[in-house]
Amino acid sequence: MTLPRIGVTVGDPAGIGPEIIIKAFSRPERLPAADYILYAPRSVVKAEADALGIVPAYGTAVFAGGREGRLSLATREEPRKPFPKGASSAEAGRLAFLYFQEAVGDARKKRLEAVVTAPISKTSWSSAGIEWRGHTEYLDHLFPGTIMTFWSERLKVALFSHHLSLREALALVREDSLYNYFLRLREGFRQAGLGDAEFLLAGLNPHAGEGGVLGGEESSEILPAVRRARREGVDVSDPLPPDVVFRRALDRPKTVAVALYHDQGLIAFKLLAFETGVNVSLGMPFVRTSPDHGTAFDIAGRNAAHPASLVEALKLAVRLSAASL
Amino acid sequence: MTLPRIGVTVGDPAGIGPEIIIKAFSRPERLPAADYILYAPRSVVKAEADALGIVPAYGTAVFAGGREGRLSLATREEPRKPFPKGASSAEAGRLAFLYFQEAVGDARKKRLEAVVTAPISKTSWSSAGIEWRGHTEYLDHLFPGTIMTFWSERLKVALFSHHLSLREALALVREDSLYNYFLRLREGFRQAGLGDAEFLLAGLNPHAGEGGVLGGEESSEILPAVRRARREGVDVSDPLPPDVVFRRALDRPKTVAVALYHDQGLIAFKLLAFETGVNVSLGMPFVRTSPDHGTAFDIAGRNAAHPASLVEALKLAVRLSAASL
Repeated sequence: MTLPRIGVTVGDPAGIGPEIIIKAFSRPERLPAADYILYAPRSVVKAEADALGIVPAYGTAVFAGGREGRLSLATREEPRKPFPKGASSAEAGRLAFLYFQEAVGDARKKRLEAVVTAPISKTSWSSAGIEWRGHTEYLDHLFPGTIMTFWSERLKVALFSHHLSLREALALVREDSLYNYFLRLREGFRQAGLGDAEFLLAGLNPHAGEGGVLGGEESSEILPAVRRARREGVDVSDPLPPDVVFRRALDRPKTVAVALYHDQGLIAFKLLAFETGVNVSLGMPFVRTSPDHGTAFDIAGRNAAHPASLVEALKLAVRLSAASL
Repeated sequence: MTLPRIGVTVGDPAGIGPEIIIKAFSRPERLPAADYILYAPRSVVKAEADALGIVPAYGTAVFAGGREGRLSLATREEPRKPFPKGASSAEAGRLAFLYFQEAVGDARKKRLEAVVTAPISKTSWSSAGIEWRGHTEYLDHLFPGTIMTFWSERLKVALFSHHLSLREALALVREDSLYNYFLRLREGFRQAGLGDAEFLLAGLNPHAGEGGVLGGEESSEILPAVRRARREGVDVSDPLPPDVVFRRALDRPKTVAVALYHDQGLIAFKLLAFETGVNVSLGMPFVRTSPDHGTAFDIAGRNAAHPASLVEALKLAVRLSAASL
C-alpha cells in the first residue's frame, strides 16, 4: 500500500510552529504512517530541537499500529540574518512564505498529496512585502473557489465567506454565488472522500428570517439557490435558524453545517473544538490542513506549546489523502 | 424573611406551558421557597392536570430545604370557545396575552417581584390581533430600553439588538446607541443583584476588524462608545474577536458576554445551554424570566415535555428577586 506524502511547513519560525512540529514527531506512534517531509530551515529546526532536548529522528520511523513510514527534511534557504523569537519580523515572514510556497509548489507537481501548515504571522508576511494576507488568500489566488472548512470530532463547518467585514459578507449573499458555492462544496467533500455529504445550511437572519419578518434574503436569494442546487442533486437543506443548525449537525459524520459568514461558523466551531480543531482547505488539487490556532508569540520559545491541534491536522491530512491515492 | 412573589403565566394554553408548569409544581422540593401565583384559566389547568394524573396542591407547600411557601391560582377569564391542542389559534393567543398582561400589571403594581412566562405562539398572538410580536416586544413597549439576556450555568449573554434582520442590526451599531446601552446594561445587572459585572464585548466583524482590514465599525463606533462608558465607570472591554469572546466568558460568574446582534449571542448560548437556558429581561421595575424554548406544539398534550428549563427560570426569578426585597 502506497503511503501518502505529507508536506509539513514550518510556519513563522519565530512562533510555536517549530516547537509543535518537533514535539509531534518526537512521538511518531501517535501519528498515522506516512512519508512526512518537513519544509523548514535546518538551523531553525536544530536550534529548536536543541532547546527542547529532543533529537529529531529522520529516516524510517515507526508510526501508529507499528507501521513504518519516513520523516525527512526539505531545506531550502537558511535565515539571512537573526530574527527575534516571539515577535513578528520581515525575515521570519520571508522564510515562512518561502517554505510554504515550496510545499505548495511540490504539491502542485504531485510530489505531495497534502500540505499541513503551521501558523504564520500575517504581520510578518506583510513586513516582508508579501501581497497575500495569509495561507488561505494565497491558495485562493492559485485555486480560485477554494473552500474553507473546519473539522472536529463532533462538528464540521464550511464557510461561504471568510475574511470580509460583516457588511461585505452580507452583500455577497446572492443566488448565483450561493448556487455555485453549493456545487463546489459537494465536489470538495467528494474529493475528500466523504462521498455525498449532507449540508445543513444556516440562514442569514435570526430565525432564518421567520417568513420574511426578520429579513428577506432567505426567500429572495438563499432558497432559490438551494432549489437550483437540489435539482443538481446536492443534498442541501433549506436555510435553518442559525442558532439551531450547529447543534443539529453535531455528531453526524456525513453532515456539514454551512455558515454564510465567518463568525456564524467560527463562534460555534471554536466553542466546541478548542485546541483540537483543524482547518481544511478543499476544492484544490491537493489537501491542505492546519491547526486551528495562531503563532502564539507570547509563549514561543518557552516549551509551553501543545502539539494537539497539529497532531489532529496531520491525522486528518493522512486520512483525506487516502481518498486521492 | 419575606418570600418573593413570583407570577407564572400559562403561555399558549395549546402548547406545553400548562404541562411543564404542573410538572414543575408537582415536585416543589426542587423549587426555591416563594409565593408562586399561576396566571392561568382554571379549566385549562384542571384539564391538563387530569390528563397528567397530577393533583395540583394549592395553598401552603414545602419547597427546597423544607421551607414553606405558597402556591395559588390567579384566574381571570375562562376560554370562550374550545381551541385545538398543539396548534395555534386566535382563542389560545387571546388567553395567553390576557394572562401575561395581568401578571405584568400586577408586577407594575408591586404585587409581584418577578414574572416567569411560559412560551407563547407568535402566530396565535397575531391571529388574536395582538399588536406585539411577543413577550419581549410588549415589555419593550412598556419599558423602553429593556435588556434581553440569556443565563446558564456556564455563560451569561446580553444582546445589544435582537429581533431584527442582520442588515438592520448592523445599521444600529452606532456610538451613541452603544454608549447608552452600556450604561443601561450596568444598571440592569446592578438591579439584578450582580453588582458591577464585567462586560466582555464582541466586535462586529471577524477578528474584531483586525485593525480595520476586516471592517471599520470597531474603530469608528464601538471603541469610542466603550471609552465613553469606561469614563463613567462601566467595566466594558474593547471589542474582542467574536469567535473568542464567548469562550473567554465561560465559568466566570460576574462576567457577561455582550453580543452586538441576535445570532452572535444565541449561536454560542444555545450550543452550550440546551434545555436549561433561561431568558431574562432586565432594566424593568421587576424581573422577568422565561424558559429558552417555544410552545413545542408538536409534542403538546403527549406528556412528553420536560420542565427543566422552566425550573431553571423559576429558580433564577427567585434568586434575582431577592436583590429587590
